[in-house]
Amino acid sequence: MRILDKGFIDLIDHMGDDNTVVSAARVSVLGHTKGEIRDGELIRYLLDNNHTSPFEHVTFQFLVKCPIFVARQWMRHRTWSYNEVSRRYTSDNIEFYIPNKLRRQSIGDKQMSEGTISALDARNISKDIEDHVSDSCYLYRKMITYGIAREQARMVLPTNLYTSFYATVDLHNLFHFMKLRNHPHAQEEVRVYAEAMESLIEPIVPISLGAWKTIIKGGSN
Amino acid sequence: MRILDKGFIDLIDHMGDDNTVVSAARVSVLGHTKGEIRDGELIRYLLDNNHTSPFEHVTFQFLVKCPIFVARQWMRHRTWSYNEVSRRYTSDNIEFYIPNKLRRQSIGDKQMSEGTISALDARNISKDIEDHVSDSCYLYRKMITYGIAREQARMVLPTNLYTSFYATVDLHNLFHFMKLRNHPHAQEEVRVYAEAMESLIEPIVPISLGAWKTIIKGGSN
Amino acid sequence: MRILDKGFIDLIDHMGDDNTVVSAARVSVLGHTKGEIRDGELIRYLLDNNHTSPFEHVTFQFLVKCPIFVARQWMRHRTWSYNEVSRRYTSDNIEFYIPNKLRRQSIGDKQMSEGTISALDARNISKDIEDHVSDSCYLYRKMITYGIAREQARMVLPTNLYTSFYATVDLHNLFHFMKLRNHPHAQEEVRVYAEAMESLIEPIVPISLGAWKTIIKGGSN
Amino acid sequence: MRILDKGFIDLIDHMGDDNTVVSAARVSVLGHTKGEIRDGELIRYLLDNNHTSPFEHVTFQFLVKCPIFVARQWMRHRTWSYNEVSRRYTSDNIEFYIPNKLRRQSIGDKQMSEGTISALDARNISKDIEDHVSDSCYLYRKMITYGIAREQARMVLPTNLYTSFYATVDLHNLFHFMKLRNHPHAQEEVRVYAEAMESLIEPIVPISLGAWKTIIKGGSN
Repeated sequence: MRILDKGFIDLIDHMGDDNTVVSAARVSVLGHTKGEIRDGELIRYLLDNNHTSPFEHVTFQFLVKCPIFVARQWMRHRTWSYNEVSRRYTSDNIEFYIPNKLRRQSIGDKQMSEGTISALDARNISKDIEDHVSDSCYLYRKMITYGIAREQARMVLPTNLYTSFYATVDLHNLFHFMKLRNHPHAQEEVRVYAEAMESLIEPIVPISLGAWKTIIKGGSN
Repeated sequence: MRILDKGFIDLIDHMGDDNTVVSAARVSVLGHTKGEIRDGELIRYLLDNNHTSPFEHVTFQFLVKCPIFVARQWMRHRTWSYNEVSRRYTSDNIEFYIPNKLRRQSIGDKQMSEGTISALDARNISKDIEDHVSDSCYLYRKMITYGIAREQARMVLPTNLYTSFYATVDLHNLFHFMKLRNHPHAQEEVRVYAEAMESLIEPIVPISLGAWKTIIKGGSN
Repeated sequence: MRILDKGFIDLIDHMGDDNTVVSAARVSVLGHTKGEIRDGELIRYLLDNNHTSPFEHVTFQFLVKCPIFVARQWMRHRTWSYNEVSRRYTSDNIEFYIPNKLRRQSIGDKQMSEGTISALDARNISKDIEDHVSDSCYLYRKMITYGIAREQARMVLPTNLYTSFYATVDLHNLFHFMKLRNHPHAQEEVRVYAEAMESLIEPIVPISLGAWKTIIKGGSN
Repeated sequence: MRILDKGFIDLIDHMGDDNTVVSAARVSVLGHTKGEIRDGELIRYLLDNNHTSPFEHVTFQFLVKCPIFVARQWMRHRTWSYNEVSRRYTSDNIEFYIPNKLRRQSIGDKQMSEGTISALDARNISKDIEDHVSDSCYLYRKMITYGIAREQARMVLPTNLYTSFYATVDLHNLFHFMKLRNHPHAQEEVRVYAEAMESLIEPIVPISLGAWKTIIKGGSN
């Protein structure tokens, strides 16, 4: 699933589905007996009442390619497992994110953007960014050629450098990520990954995702 | 898989296998290129060098039935996800663990047992334990009959009461559990569960488990 | 601070206060500059917007004595650090919780209690509970006398046995505990500990606690 | 405490000391009784036997200023609490790390460096790095002037940009960090921070730190 100009996110593997959530909840709540509560109702009840543990038994493994400044936000989420390409080991596959829109700084909200700058300015600055990543790459390669250690040479590369990582998470903590990162306050470059994950898990946990969208994402909880 | 007199542990589901570990490690270490290092060597290298993150992308879901005093030790492990039968919800399925051997207190090590008490004493005490769980159960049922809330009535039940829970964990944290709980210092009633998990995951991660047995369990790391 | 008939909770030590929260938030939000936003407003903004990380830099260490069935609920919270008396090491200090009210099972909510049983029934059952803990204690002592290992003998003790533990947590995760355990759905025997912690931390983080009571505990978040 | 050319690490606050570790361990091990085991012996016993929980009741809060490529390694440690300057909020305080030595790539170990490049080459490349950070800064300022959102403009800044964050951790998890990051395999730019933390905590937990150096850092565990 292509994201941004050269990134992607793939769902590599998963464990469990909506039934897993329901079974885990019924061990807790009903002592193995078949409940008369239908699955959807039970799942909505769990989300409505902060009974989050049944969602932890469903796990997903993703492979992500994104700019470093996105990866930095992602890895602040400490309940995921990560394995990332290390630039101490390799100097291959140097690619950079070039935005197709340059957004204006929001005045009202210090952390946000709104709208875009003029097309003329955008062309000008986009050219500058492309030159800058070329120059960065040139200096990096020169340092490598001079025999400088990769772990030091990488420091000259800007944070729109693409990186790749495996990322494993359970459904409860994925919901938490999606709540914070697929949110109007989040930066667009991370929101597109959060939106993509919604699409990727939809066929696996349609009932849980639907309930989460109604109760948490769109609701007051 | 039967454990103790009335307990069990089943592997319900899993995500990934030895290849998952190797792929995750290669993203970190070799930048997507096929390494010339063979899988077994790579896995041994990871365990030898505290590179534990690749093992976190393999997950297992177990269903466990064990005495409360075992569950209490288990749930001190905070990297697992749990859903346990709640005795606030149900008064069904009251069963107790009756040991088939009564072990002697170790003199040298305050926390451990060694050997068993005499057969005559064991018969005597086993009878006492059976009477005690009957009496406990009788009082519990009486309290329920008097209309006392399940959440309070349960307090009279001893900790050899069986409980059930779903337990989900990744391979790295399962190895940590197995290191501490399948250890000569651990209590036999929890060791038998740790041993059972070794057998249950063996067909899924034979290379990782073999390397772990050599390097960590039997070794100096 | 006395809780239940023989339990307590003490605040042993702490790190930080409301200023710690504010300083941590200002590093993130305002880049070290003194904000014109007053402290209370900033703290309310953080809670209102799920900016929970600044509250993690304030930590508390408690010493708790509570019945095992309460400790079992407590230790489901995996973000705390615990050190508990081990009944593998000691057979001293065997004490039991005897409730001063016996609550009725709620009909409407399977997990809850409401009101109390009749005074006559309560006297009858309370006597039974006292006899039961005496009998349990007698059997335990007999098993110890027969040389049975403490780790096995303890299994006959009911879950109203008192246990003690050190418990360390940061303010964010304490708020989470208080939200779930000082809640109408929580069992009274754990609620009294959650309420006590509110009183104990109030002199240290009055602004944060006040904001949390308004926005989270009493509010819609 | 100055680290690298413009970085630092300060110990802002802490909770507990060696006595905290000993008290927590004695609750677990000895049931509140004063043990005849002296404190140092007990602490060494704990480290030798993977009894890590008593070290979790001691907490430290640091303020760190380091290059982004160091912060990226740091924040892979998920048991810490962090609050970092956000470049979505501020465009102030743009400073870069300029290494005073340029190390050679190790041939034998793909991830490491060894020795330095020639003085002549180092002068040449250092000048290039300084020009590069100037150019990067110039482009960043130009983008800000054109009204581009800070969250996007920051992407052109290289990862030797300095960042600042509060970091809170308990002693057990600090030991884990120090084991991995003050290690011959770690990159020098992160090792200097790990070494500094050893000095900063030494007056607070001299016994625990001494035992850790002997048993874990220098030993076989």
